[in-house]
Amino acid sequence: MAHHRDTFDLLIVGGGVIGLSVAWRAAGRGLRTAVADPAPASGASHAAAGMLAPVSEVTYTEEPLLRLGLASLARWPSFAAELAAEGGLDLDYRADGTLDVAFGADDLAALDDLAAFIDKLGLPAERLTGRECRRLEPMLAPSVRGGLLAGGDAWVDPRRVTRALLAAWERLGGVLMRSRVTGLETASGAVSGVRLATGETVGADRVILAAGAWSPTLEGLPPEVVPPVRPIKGQIVRLRSPAPLLGRCVRGVVHGSHVYLVPRSDGELVVGATQEEMGFDTRVTAGGLWELLRDARELVPGVTELELSDVVAGLRPGTPDNLPLVGPTLLPGLSLATGHHRGGVLLAPLTADLCLADLRLTGPAGPAGPRPGSGSGSGSGSGSGETDGELSAICSPLRFQEHRRPPLQALQALRG
Amino acid sequence: MAHHRDTFDLLIVGGGVIGLSVAWRAAGRGLRTAVADPAPASGASHAAAGMLAPVSEVTYTEEPLLRLGLASLARWPSFAAELAAEGGLDLDYRADGTLDVAFGADDLAALDDLAAFIDKLGLPAERLTGRECRRLEPMLAPSVRGGLLAGGDAWVDPRRVTRALLAAWERLGGVLMRSRVTGLETASGAVSGVRLATGETVGADRVILAAGAWSPTLEGLPPEVVPPVRPIKGQIVRLRSPAPLLGRCVRGVVHGSHVYLVPRSDGELVVGATQEEMGFDTRVTAGGLWELLRDARELVPGVTELELSDVVAGLRPGTPDNLPLVGPTLLPGLSLATGHHRGGVLLAPLTADLCLADLRLTGPAGPAGPRPGSGSGSGSGSGSGETDGELSAICSPLRFQEHRRPPLQALQALRG
Repeated sequence: MAHHRDTFDLLIVGGGVIGLSVAWRAAGRGLRTAVADPAPASGASHAAAGMLAPVSEVTYTEEPLLRLGLASLARWPSFAAELAAEGGLDLDYRADGTLDVAFGADDLAALDDLAAFIDKLGLPAERLTGRECRRLEPMLAPSVRGGLLAGGDAWVDPRRVTRALLAAWERLGGVLMRSRVTGLETASGAVSGVRLATGETVGADRVILAAGAWSPTLEGLPPEVVPPVRPIKGQIVRLRSPAPLLGRCVRGVVHGSHVYLVPRSDGELVVGATQEEMGFDTRVTAGGLWELLRDARELVPGVTELELSDVVAGLRPGTPDNLPLVGPTLLPGLSLATGHHRGGVLLAPLTADLCLADLRLTGPAGPAGPRPGSGSGSGSGSGSGETDGELSAICSPLRFQEHRRPPLQALQALRG
Repeated sequence: MAHHRDTFDLLIVGGGVIGLSVAWRAAGRGLRTAVADPAPASGASHAAAGMLAPVSEVTYTEEPLLRLGLASLARWPSFAAELAAEGGLDLDYRADGTLDVAFGADDLAALDDLAAFIDKLGLPAERLTGRECRRLEPMLAPSVRGGLLAGGDAWVDPRRVTRALLAAWERLGGVLMRSRVTGLETASGAVSGVRLATGETVGADRVILAAGAWSPTLEGLPPEVVPPVRPIKGQIVRLRSPAPLLGRCVRGVVHGSHVYLVPRSDGELVVGATQEEMGFDTRVTAGGLWELLRDARELVPGVTELELSDVVAGLRPGTPDNLPLVGPTLLPGLSLATGHHRGGVLLAPLTADLCLADLRLTGPAGPAGPRPGSGSGSGSGSGSGETDGELSAICSPLRFQEHRRPPLQALQALRG
């Protein structure tokens, strides 16, 4: 069996927005990084609309997820600026807010509650009448009766983000392996690398599994380490107009289903998204497409004139508690960075920081630590270092793994 | 300027289902044929669903069109059989009829009228209750209240038809020139060939303009010969299912718009089609797609589960009287075979026969006649020869050209 000539400090399984963000940041700290993915940036990151809207995306009961989202949103301006500069690409990052609109009395009441909630968080929120909504966004349907402008929200083009990440990271010496990972290599009970579908093995001090919805399918994972991630299908439509139809993201509830419209500066308008539990099914269906177009039409009737430019279905990596899985597993040398569900783009900067903190914290003692002299200790703080530990605890994979330990180990743990 | 080494008996401008049908049939009679098209079989023929349903497609007032349709429908079984054999390709030609369904009282009354009309024509027509419709097609919506089974209707896969035509015709020595025609060459007042975008000129005894909606845009056409053809946009969706959802074509009127579903043997289901006056616009729009999916869903709710496999917009060549333009023009050597609107696939066999009859009838006297020894006179009758003259008169391009003659010529014609 062929062995790759290099051994890496860090090998990441999966080249989506999460894997590439971690890889780029780690390479920036001087780590020798590799990413294995047969088709980088082609999964959920390719489908995603790129809304960076942590507040309106969560229900009030999901406070831990909100904390992660706000921490990552705060990182986005500098992340986007650095990435655009290093990747040589405009990301169409914009921070002009989201306008949530309502058609009926119930939805208006819900907007009032959301406004109070956002206000309590110290974030900008402005309740608007239907007329004020249309003054802000003249293409809105006349039937819109009110809205809430969440001024702190931002959005970005995820396809540009992954393109920039690939360019910036490869410029830093990152090694992309366009191959599927077929198994883990272990030595002395710790992960020491991976096997590729090409037959080659690649050595690495640390492996991070960032394969989104496919993360649990990696062969050779011990049962207690298999992440509790399932695919949640999302169909999403891209329309094209000569000039942008909207000045900011617009969301609403139509016929009981949530729909959002994300405008790009070049005239593209993204309409998303269905949420379906269909397993590993990425078919675009007549019904899914019809529903998206129907809802978009209710929100902004003028979309009917726009050209269809793209329809895709992606698979979000969902978890039982809707929180991501980021950090070390029970298997030494193996970490996770998956389970980001609808928040992969939003949470990418935070996930990268948490992974780097993890790499530093576990230090050079175990087989999972970076190699001496690899520069892992030279990085500066992320700017929100004081809460990294708390945030890290929220998304630790161990919350699902502890109770999955094999009985004997569990017993030993109790006795120990 | 380069001149093509061969001179052809017949050069056809446009490689859609009409142009290729004429070319194939002419080559079969021994004529040396060429077709010029930068992208054969990519226009309206590529978009078309392939319904061969002359009766339910026309309104009762359009009797001449109906006569053409019935004459061509009668030619389809042998045309399809010969083409499948010579082209080496199954065309998915099926003659299992069309089921027209109705939801409301008005539509049911219209079905009664249509049934009486079809009956009068001596064609099979059967009025069915809603229950009988669903027994025939179990996937139909429960809200369908009645139907009409037009047993004489057939359908075919137009993409397979054009592929087979290209193969069969090239096997007979047909010469395909993948280039745009930029003008006509004339000699002694008659068309003697064409100029291609490559700069090359090609000599031909007869040129047939069969460029569909683009026919009037050919440079160098005398004003009185420019065909009164306009593009009528049609958006059409193709869905994919593991097994066919329907046993025959199903049509209906939903929300005031006509929708039809054409099933292929391989599980493809074609949903068509919008009719839009938008000029040369082939954009697929959010509104067009939404409308098709909405209507298909009303007819057969199960379509929502099907995968989207293709969406295109084509341009039908519409005429002022909805009749095609087939036959000689005022310009010697130039004939037309265009203006088939929604009936190009249906009318292809008849159009080919009429063009061949025209080539024989005008004989070797004028510059438009086939070259001696080219075999143009050896063909046998089409099987409906006795009415070819009448049918030919119905679609003669001269009906639009006579009153367009320049004043002097018109005067001479009156005096003559």
